[in-house]
Amino acid sequence: MPAKSLVAIRWDGGCLYLLDQRLLPHSRCELTCSTWQEVAGAISEMVVRGAPAIAIAAAYGMALAVRCGEDLETASQGLLAARPTAVNLRWVLERLSAVPDHRIAEEAVDIHAEDLRINRALGAHGAGLLSGGVLTICNTGTLATGGHGTALGMIRSAWAAGTPLHVYALETRPYLQGARLTAFECVEEAIPCTLLTDGMAAAAMASGRVCSVVVGCDRVAENGDTANKIGTLQLAVLARHYGLPLYVAMPTSTLDRRCATGADIVIEERGPDEVRGVQGMPIAPDSVAVWNPAFDVTPSQLISGWVTEHGIWRPPFPSE
Amino acid sequence: MPAKSLVAIRWDGGCLYLLDQRLLPHSRCELTCSTWQEVAGAISEMVVRGAPAIAIAAAYGMALAVRCGEDLETASQGLLAARPTAVNLRWVLERLSAVPDHRIAEEAVDIHAEDLRINRALGAHGAGLLSGGVLTICNTGTLATGGHGTALGMIRSAWAAGTPLHVYALETRPYLQGARLTAFECVEEAIPCTLLTDGMAAAAMASGRVCSVVVGCDRVAENGDTANKIGTLQLAVLARHYGLPLYVAMPTSTLDRRCATGADIVIEERGPDEVRGVQGMPIAPDSVAVWNPAFDVTPSQLISGWVTEHGIWRPPFPSE
Repeated sequence: MPAKSLVAIRWDGGCLYLLDQRLLPHSRCELTCSTWQEVAGAISEMVVRGAPAIAIAAAYGMALAVRCGEDLETASQGLLAARPTAVNLRWVLERLSAVPDHRIAEEAVDIHAEDLRINRALGAHGAGLLSGGVLTICNTGTLATGGHGTALGMIRSAWAAGTPLHVYALETRPYLQGARLTAFECVEEAIPCTLLTDGMAAAAMASGRVCSVVVGCDRVAENGDTANKIGTLQLAVLARHYGLPLYVAMPTSTLDRRCATGADIVIEERGPDEVRGVQGMPIAPDSVAVWNPAFDVTPSQLISGWVTEHGIWRPPFPSE
Repeated sequence: MPAKSLVAIRWDGGCLYLLDQRLLPHSRCELTCSTWQEVAGAISEMVVRGAPAIAIAAAYGMALAVRCGEDLETASQGLLAARPTAVNLRWVLERLSAVPDHRIAEEAVDIHAEDLRINRALGAHGAGLLSGGVLTICNTGTLATGGHGTALGMIRSAWAAGTPLHVYALETRPYLQGARLTAFECVEEAIPCTLLTDGMAAAAMASGRVCSVVVGCDRVAENGDTANKIGTLQLAVLARHYGLPLYVAMPTSTLDRRCATGADIVIEERGPDEVRGVQGMPIAPDSVAVWNPAFDVTPSQLISGWVTEHGIWRPPFPSE
């Protein structure tokens, strides 16, 4: 099936259709949302995930709230609470709060289209940074965004430009976005890709397979400290040890100027069953304690550059 | 069920019974081996795993070869080929080659009992190194050895001595020995334990939860370079970054004086399906490429000490 059939978020003017990413790569089902509450549930249950995609879904959630005649302040709070770490969600809801009710659906469509344009611009700026072995974590592709992707968008842009490269995708436990989604997007587009478990990153670097690391982000503080998928911090420490650059693909909507440093970023901790099992199949004793932070914070000084739609940034970040 | 019921390897003088560790923690089944070929199969299929346990099983495999009147050189070569990285296997087979055929079964029983004594001595030497949060990978406990364990044996000895500690067990993909076996042993013995995915190690260290890291080993070179479960190398890099000690629990039978450095250690690469799936359940596209090294090599200089049955060693290692 061609890659363009991979659409995470679809809006027909009356309902929102979300590709149920929990079921990929084995089956492709769309979940239909006709209320903002269904959208909030889909976000917290990870039907849709990835900071930009969550924000787009929430924008359509607000459009559904208007359609259903719901209280918009309640809807906005409910959507905001669905996942706490990604800042794009807040950014979208604040943007919509300034828009007259009758224009919210239209604005949501604009936000969606804009995200795709931003990712393409980001990819074009970042493509030149990548060649050879590129290690990445989680999924930052079409499925995580309005299309094209952020970190995987940089890879996609580099590959489309004819750069020889090879993706090393970490499987990204507990939720396996790397195995299920990134490997899937690469296979769909015939981008060379090797799947690794999360414990193989250092061995891959030590073996000479990896030339650079590129990751997405869920919230970036004013000083550059970057919250992203759990496991990113160790990639940054390892990349520094092995003398490899690590780039963060950052649409500027992910920069939270209200957070001075990473210490201000709230990290979502999820329930124990994701770690005690794999997609519902138990793999550990039921009674063992679990720590399940969904994200970690990488200190600014371990990051080589933040690739944005406006170019490659370093702190202090410019005003747009 | 009390911990003493956890017996990985049992010999009744005529047959070898191996607890099928692939099925833990959900069911406890013993596999009966009455030929050396069945033992070799059980080793390569990971019914039994862990460098010391593999060696003990192979010793009993040789006893079965004697019993069945098989060619012992063929049996020894077949058992040696079952898994290439752990040196204990070779050490046991060489030891048995110097023993008269009619004494091989007795010698296997001695090797088994000796392993338990060695682990208890190692645990006693190492217990004082541990307190507070102790991060570990894979399974190095009763199930990986003739009893008590190596790295988990140090933890067990420290806990038995009244040291306040908390185990952070990495799940250890692809084979999940941490989630399935280490968490299980800790729960059985009520040793405080929190299960983490492999990507959480740096976040756990950065959060202040971890005071030290302790790991087992499959082969240690003369200069101290240490082959152990894939993922160990990154723990060593991270521990150095965060100023934490990393100890290797090393029965001296795991020291391979024929390997000058880690470059001489052959690393077993296993098939792709362990990474494309979890315990037989697919989690990734069937066609994605996989790299699946079962071990990695940690350079000597990233290791704080090698805990042996004779005390804490550092290279150049003493002659015994």
